[in-house]
Amino acid sequence: MSEIKTIVVNRSAYADNDLEADYLRKYLKEKGTYVVNLMSSPGAGKTTTLTKLINILKSTFRIGVMEADIDSDVDAISIAKNTGVKSIQLHTSGMCHLDAGMTKSGLDGINIEDLDLVFLENVGNLVCPAEFDTGACLDIMILSIPEGDDKPLKYPLVFEKCDLVIINKIDTISYFNFDFKKCEETIKMRNPNATIIPISAKTGENVDKVAQYFIEKVNNWKEK
Amino acid sequence: MSEIKTIVVNRSAYADNDLEADYLRKYLKEKGTYVVNLMSSPGAGKTTTLTKLINILKSTFRIGVMEADIDSDVDAISIAKNTGVKSIQLHTSGMCHLDAGMTKSGLDGINIEDLDLVFLENVGNLVCPAEFDTGACLDIMILSIPEGDDKPLKYPLVFEKCDLVIINKIDTISYFNFDFKKCEETIKMRNPNATIIPISAKTGENVDKVAQYFIEKVNNWKEK
Repeated sequence: MSEIKTIVVNRSAYADNDLEADYLRKYLKEKGTYVVNLMSSPGAGKTTTLTKLINILKSTFRIGVMEADIDSDVDAISIAKNTGVKSIQLHTSGMCHLDAGMTKSGLDGINIEDLDLVFLENVGNLVCPAEFDTGACLDIMILSIPEGDDKPLKYPLVFEKCDLVIINKIDTISYFNFDFKKCEETIKMRNPNATIIPISAKTGENVDKVAQYFIEKVNNWKEK
Repeated sequence: MSEIKTIVVNRSAYADNDLEADYLRKYLKEKGTYVVNLMSSPGAGKTTTLTKLINILKSTFRIGVMEADIDSDVDAISIAKNTGVKSIQLHTSGMCHLDAGMTKSGLDGINIEDLDLVFLENVGNLVCPAEFDTGACLDIMILSIPEGDDKPLKYPLVFEKCDLVIINKIDTISYFNFDFKKCEETIKMRNPNATIIPISAKTGENVDKVAQYFIEKVNNWKEK
């Protein structure tokens, strides 16, 4: 897969991002396409996790992936090559986050008519993406073991906002000084309702639990 | 060390950040205080690296540290406890970066009269901090092995801007799929003049080389 569609997405013309995000969610409900906004620090394992996850979920859902980055298209190529699902690259014109207008441009570019589930891989950044509602149906994040257990203390908003916190690279926990219980407690302090699933995208451990989480989420959403 | 001075720094009232940054650099030259702006992703090892580095450099320079975070004061406490140097916490009021005005507020708070060298630990974020000149004399960054060798492709500006790229956590390189040569090449593509020093802040490997780098930088600056 050498040619990947790349879309340059620009800041929305709408003044009210929250309003546009709500409008987008209604549109997605009409279309029957569930969009998941995935956030994390750079290098926490978003693309690797999505690859493993999609290879489980693709027998259940018709899946698409939008990879947002400031530059490069390595992630969209990687997803297409390693999962076979429809994948596009969004370039953010230097922006540190995606808003609802940028997400809508991406969705128009990937064409959601034949998709049940779209993953939006946000720019690797624990701060700004959390401040902008993308219009996705669900916000989730990945924290990776090498980043340390203190991140929920330092980056409150993203942990408050995410329904699911995937803790990745648990295969490295014996190497890093990461207190899993303390981390769980601080995540719950930020967001008592967060679901926390420890995984290793590298070894595949527990990725099936994340897949099950999405099957339930999408099915509940469709029934509503 | 249980009490750490915390300063809430707000966005500058000045419209022209670049102008204010240049003004700050002139002021620092007059005062004889060299300020280093340290950037990285969350969890790349800024505080651990600074701790090891300062314990080498503190016999040569009078050092201060300003720890910027959106929330928490764990880093400033850690620096003060583990190095004994003057350390303050800056809270950014939710902001994802520091500008020159915020840096000046921090410097006023730490009082630079008796300091030769001040490290400013920026908010953990590879995007926004690179967009704002803090007025520091030098911009440096840490990339850590678990983040992956593709980061210079995805986050161009921070690599273009930094004179020194420290590659941390090299003690974990056998575990992660990190191509050091490829990473070096892409850093040099972004910034042919960058100095690249691989270290392990955990084991202390090569931290003396970083210390030597700063001794030369500060001495050259003072002689100018």
